[in-house]
Parts: sequence; structure tokens; C-alpha cells
Amino acid sequence: MKNSENDSGSRQRMLESTIALMRQRGLAGAGINEIVRHSGAPKGSVYHFFPDGKQQIVGEALAVYAGRVAAFIEQALASERRPPDKLRALFAAFARRVEDGDFAASCAAGTVSLDLDNDLENLRQVLAATFADWRELIAGQLALADPVEGASFAGLVLTAIEGAYIRCRAERSSRPFSEAGEWLARLLAGST
Amino acid sequence: MKNSENDSGSRQRMLESTIALMRQRGLAGAGINEIVRHSGAPKGSVYHFFPDGKQQIVGEALAVYAGRVAAFIEQALASERRPPDKLRALFAAFARRVEDGDFAASCAAGTVSLDLDNDLENLRQVLAATFADWRELIAGQLALADPVEGASFAGLVLTAIEGAYIRCRAERSSRPFSEAGEWLARLLAGST
Repeated sequence: MKNSENDSGSRQRMLESTIALMRQRGLAGAGINEIVRHSGAPKGSVYHFFPDGKQQIVGEALAVYAGRVAAFIEQALASERRPPDKLRALFAAFARRVEDGDFAASCAAGTVSLDLDNDLENLRQVLAATFADWRELIAGQLALADPVEGASFAGLVLTAIEGAYIRCRAERSSRPFSEAGEWLARLLAGST
Repeated sequence: MKNSENDSGSRQRMLESTIALMRQRGLAGAGINEIVRHSGAPKGSVYHFFPDGKQQIVGEALAVYAGRVAAFIEQALASERRPPDKLRALFAAFARRVEDGDFAASCAAGTVSLDLDNDLENLRQVLAATFADWRELIAGQLALADPVEGASFAGLVLTAIEGAYIRCRAERSSRPFSEAGEWLARLLAGST
């Protein structure tokens, strides 16, 4: 195996570990030591691949994660034709996702948002942009007649996803997702 | 001042610091060192007042916090007569709360839920019970005709509160609360 392939594999493993750790315990769980332990990479190599350290690896990992979640949201919404059914499918997909993670992993953007402080303004902007992207994606798929209402409703959908993750982890149940999906589908059916 | 008064003051200050730190960065932010620094208490006194250490102080702080939030929710909901107006008042109160904290503090039960792991089963149960209490309180105030629907709708309200906090911190805006309040008031008006 060529060195560059080795390199690219190690780099990717560190990013995957960072995503997994952020989904479990946010920024505090994704320290350099934890990333090294989880990925099996030698400690020096973190700074080799990510010279700016934790901020850089976390920022890149969030970008990879954001793209994956966007694809996940798009696939779930596109699986049905009628907007209320699209919403039910979306929340059902998230319910399965939190069950598959045995209620120990949630949304990395959510966990990191609740660890923000004033020193992390760059990261805050990355998170705000991620939420804006997801919201736009949801609004595009649901396609309410009034675009202002559509953006606002998509915001509620995103709010419910993030909040359901919190309750699911504490309650060890995916019911917050199915509950929210049913109510929001009903609300949407009455709004279109 | 008597020693016992001194004692009770120090103990209370440590609990207040724990609440403030959990609201900012969850369990990771509320380490013993951080509690000592924030409260100005001598380090030894943490173990004097809380012999079981972090788990004990966090558990007690969450209990105090849960009671305060219950009072906050009850007061906001009771301030209006019609259920949709009650909901708008509740979300407006949370919007002011997150603005007052300059978007740096959110719900301690939410932040700690996203820091849970398998070693914290006791704490998980405390959080699940806290969410159940708040949900019951909301359901009681909104008083939907069908109690099963009422419990489920109150769950959605709680989910939206927790999720709005996440978005508010990343977006530095209280709009996720006002947005959710308006939609849920509309949903409730159509359900009663």
C-alpha cells in the first residue's frame, strides 16, 4: 500500500471517530486523547493531519456529518409523495436511527451546539449554517405554497428532530420521534 | 454568623454554580474543579457537603433545577386563559429566557441528556422522570379533551422546547421558540 493511501485511511478514521464521539457526548467527548484512543491512530498523527488541532478536526468532522445527514433527510423525505407522508417517513427514519444507536448517539450538531461558548464563534457559525442547510432541504421537499410559511414550518420540523433526540436519550425510547411525526403530519395536512 | 448558616450558604452556592455550569456546557462543564472555581468554595468542601462527589452534586442540582423550571412553565401557562394563548405565552417566556442568558445557557436537563453514557443510568432515570413531570404539568394546563392525545401533545411541546434551545444557541436567535409557539398554538386550536 502506498503511503498516501495509508495517510488518507488514517485521516478518514480520525474523522469517523470524531463524528462518533461527538454524537455520544458532544465537544467534551471528542478530545484529542479520545479521538486517538477511538481511532487507534498514533497521537502525533492527529497534529500531522490536523495542524490546528481540535477546532480543525471537529470542524471537518461536522462538515462530513452535515453532508451525510442532508442525504439521510433527503432520502427519507423523497420516499413518499404526499407531504404529510414525507414527514411521517422522516420521523420514522430518525426513530430507527436512534434505536440503531441504542439511544446512546444523537445529532452531532445538537450535542456540539449545547457545548458552545464565546471562544467557539467559528464553530457556532458552522452549526448555524448546517441548520440553515437542513432547514432549506426540508422546506424544498415539503414545498408549502407560501415560501415564508414553508421556511418557518421546516424550522419547526428541525426543532422537533433536535428536541426528540434529547428526550430519546433520557427516556430510552424512540417515541418522541413518532409522536412528533404524527402531530406535524397532521399540522401540515391542515396547512396545505 | 453561625456555622450552620455558613454551611448552608456554601452548599447552596455550589448547587447554584452546578446548575449554571450544566446549563452552559452540560455534564462536562460541571466538573468538581469548575464548580469550585465558579462558586469560590474551597475544594475540600465539595466532598464535605457531597460525599459521593460529582454524581451527587449533579443529581441534587438537577432536582432543584427541575422544580424551578416546573414553576416557570406553570406560571407562563397560567398567565393566559385560552389553551393556544397559553402555548404562545409559554414559548414567549422561553424566548425571553434564552435572550436573557445571551444564548449561552439552555436547559440543564437537555444538555445533560446529550452527555449520558451507560455509566450514568441513575442520572438518566432522574432526567426521564424530570421530562415526565414537565410533560404532565403541560398536559394538565392545556387540558385536551382526550387524555391520551393530551399527553402526546404535551410531549411534542416539550420536544419543541428542548429542540428550540439547541437551535437558539447555534443561531443566536430566539426565533426557534417564537416559530414553534405559533405553529403549536395553531395546531392546538385545530385539535380542541
